[in-house]
Amino acid sequence: MTQIESARQGEVTDEIRAVAEKEKRSPEFIIDGLRSGTIVIPVNSLRRGRHAIGIGSGLATKVNANIGSSSDQISLETELEKLMAALDAGADTVMDLSTGGDIEAIRRAVLEAAAVPVGTVPIYEAAIRAVKAGKGMVEMTEDEIFQTIEDHLKSGIDFVTVHCGVTRAAIAKLRECGRLTDVVSRGGSFTLEWMYYNDKENPLYAGYDRLLEMAREYDATLSLGDGLRPGSLADATDLLQVSEMVVLGELVKRANRAGVQVMVEGPGHVPLNEVEANVVLEKKVCFGAPFYVLGPLVTDISAGYDHIAGAIGGAVAAAAGADFLCYVTPSEHLRLPTTEDVREGVVATRVAAHAGDIVKRVPGAYEWDVAMSDARKNLDWDRMLELALDPRRAKKLRDSSKPQDTTLCTMCGEYCAMKKVKGVLGDKK
Amino acid sequence: MTQIESARQGEVTDEIRAVAEKEKRSPEFIIDGLRSGTIVIPVNSLRRGRHAIGIGSGLATKVNANIGSSSDQISLETELEKLMAALDAGADTVMDLSTGGDIEAIRRAVLEAAAVPVGTVPIYEAAIRAVKAGKGMVEMTEDEIFQTIEDHLKSGIDFVTVHCGVTRAAIAKLRECGRLTDVVSRGGSFTLEWMYYNDKENPLYAGYDRLLEMAREYDATLSLGDGLRPGSLADATDLLQVSEMVVLGELVKRANRAGVQVMVEGPGHVPLNEVEANVVLEKKVCFGAPFYVLGPLVTDISAGYDHIAGAIGGAVAAAAGADFLCYVTPSEHLRLPTTEDVREGVVATRVAAHAGDIVKRVPGAYEWDVAMSDARKNLDWDRMLELALDPRRAKKLRDSSKPQDTTLCTMCGEYCAMKKVKGVLGDKK
Repeated sequence: MTQIESARQGEVTDEIRAVAEKEKRSPEFIIDGLRSGTIVIPVNSLRRGRHAIGIGSGLATKVNANIGSSSDQISLETELEKLMAALDAGADTVMDLSTGGDIEAIRRAVLEAAAVPVGTVPIYEAAIRAVKAGKGMVEMTEDEIFQTIEDHLKSGIDFVTVHCGVTRAAIAKLRECGRLTDVVSRGGSFTLEWMYYNDKENPLYAGYDRLLEMAREYDATLSLGDGLRPGSLADATDLLQVSEMVVLGELVKRANRAGVQVMVEGPGHVPLNEVEANVVLEKKVCFGAPFYVLGPLVTDISAGYDHIAGAIGGAVAAAAGADFLCYVTPSEHLRLPTTEDVREGVVATRVAAHAGDIVKRVPGAYEWDVAMSDARKNLDWDRMLELALDPRRAKKLRDSSKPQDTTLCTMCGEYCAMKKVKGVLGDKK
Repeated sequence: MTQIESARQGEVTDEIRAVAEKEKRSPEFIIDGLRSGTIVIPVNSLRRGRHAIGIGSGLATKVNANIGSSSDQISLETELEKLMAALDAGADTVMDLSTGGDIEAIRRAVLEAAAVPVGTVPIYEAAIRAVKAGKGMVEMTEDEIFQTIEDHLKSGIDFVTVHCGVTRAAIAKLRECGRLTDVVSRGGSFTLEWMYYNDKENPLYAGYDRLLEMAREYDATLSLGDGLRPGSLADATDLLQVSEMVVLGELVKRANRAGVQVMVEGPGHVPLNEVEANVVLEKKVCFGAPFYVLGPLVTDISAGYDHIAGAIGGAVAAAAGADFLCYVTPSEHLRLPTTEDVREGVVATRVAAHAGDIVKRVPGAYEWDVAMSDARKNLDWDRMLELALDPRRAKKLRDSSKPQDTTLCTMCGEYCAMKKVKGVLGDKK
């Protein structure tokens, strides 16, 4: 049985119990979310018992880190290093987006090493298999596409991005309406190219029922990709993006009916004042399905610091109800991320997720901040470092700059406001 | 004549002309802003001709970097290094908050080297002078406080933070209502301590007219400090903060009447969903005076990454109308910032300011993003690097990771969506 099916029967699975505990919610709360499709627990049935996290309404905002090789940079060791950096920095899930080298070997190694849900975008490997078989990428058959997806699910992948919304109708609209940066999604561009050369509908749209059957078999979560996501502020919330979301909303409904867990992916590049509207839109049009956003980046010009632009958009999205933030690293738009980039990207995104959780009133979120500020007021440095989002980094910075009076810090030294005010108000309150 | 007085007579000063040009606005636009107090040009009359930036409604959001020694870390060279790092990273102004070593020498060196407006918080030096004279900090006289302010203005300081709103009435409210982190502003805590031991009203409140006269003489801009700003999410937008802002609003009005330029300082630590309300409040209560916020930090737990929490709050504040963002560095709450921290803090805050400027429709802001995305679509790397917020950093990251095909990058390599889609749509459009 899938998690949804269990939930519909009122059964508290191990995963539901584990998620309820972590989130400080009742099992009934999780069951209600699974039933209505507002919560997913992305655990492939072959990996049950290994890990369980919930993503969706009422739960803490989760953070995903993308890792994976590219045709230019191929190293299993580096990818495993990145995986460890992501987990160490607190990523809730990882996606292995490898497109270089022995993709299958990397995927299996990541699955083996990761005690968190692992996602992939199977169309990448499907296309690369075609190329390795001496064909053009566009010559892969529909069966080959589905076969690759099944291979991923069989190997234990917990959630897969499928660009079902890049349809012939969408491409017609793209030609008609135009946009600044057309299609910036890799999976979206593969699909577009395939459809163009084969003059056929997107197999993942036309064959969506087949996809649902596969996902159901492994209780894998579908992550409906936004192949037409805006790749620039200019394209944000445009007709193409919104019409794709309408298609995805229908597919969410069909997944719910089939007992398949489903999330919806979102942008991308979005001006700050449109971020909330994007979340509202998804929640309405997609029947409350968990919203998984990439950033969003609130400017196009911050290459080198896109983790910060992504944290800004991600925080606002999370506060508005986005459930799952895909990190963006400082290397976005410039190069494949390094291990250090992975760490920076995860932590920046965790800051954003937590800022959103405070607004969402996720159990325990605000209380964490209160505990920290209480420690600050008491000049309790051990407790402050322990409560920091990244205790090692906080400790490293503090240790690098020793104050004369170790109850203080080198910022204000003896002129510490906390200390002064304590002296004045302390005895009077 | 002060800039306001010139504006009231319809005179286009060199500073007004320079600001209008930089901001792509008419001189009349700047004059209107100066007249109504919604724009300031913080240039001490002794430093005219050296630099001119405008801060306020309709203008690009500006970024301030705090530098300065502390009792634990004293080095003129390091402070000048930080100054250069701040300017190099694109800070619009700097504040020298030195409290260690020869404060006057540092201030003069900073003024000499900085081709941007320089601000200070004179109460720091006033208090330290008292200590150096063998008295307790609280034994400084009112005249000594005013004398230090005048010394700063005489040396050419363009804007001064004055904590005029920490009044006896405010302290009574603090005792009555309580809050988690009491007073976290250094200047606020000095003032509080002084008032407590002397059992007197805040000299900068009681003697505000004297302050206005001084500011008028040098055409210095007053930055009304928020000595009661929240130092934790728990204290945000509380009675104490708001009642101080009400006091500051009255003082804004009096400054306007006296022909003195004035800005208002704001928080601090604010949950994401209260940031906009804080801006609205200031704009209404303080008669549209430019709003100068510190962060705001949207969480208390991100020590080590507070530049990111500050960028999130700063972007949302700027989008809502905040005019001037004081950076926060990764070292906030842990140590005096290093030169590298200064650089990181400035750039993070510039990302936030720009994200806000896009929403504010500041002339040229959105166009920058469009130009970048156009370069991306055309795989024009020279242009992309040139247009990056920090071209050197962007180039460094790209150069560190060479793609086989130099029209692409190592993220997607040959599977670049931009390239693929160009191939498909290029000839059909």
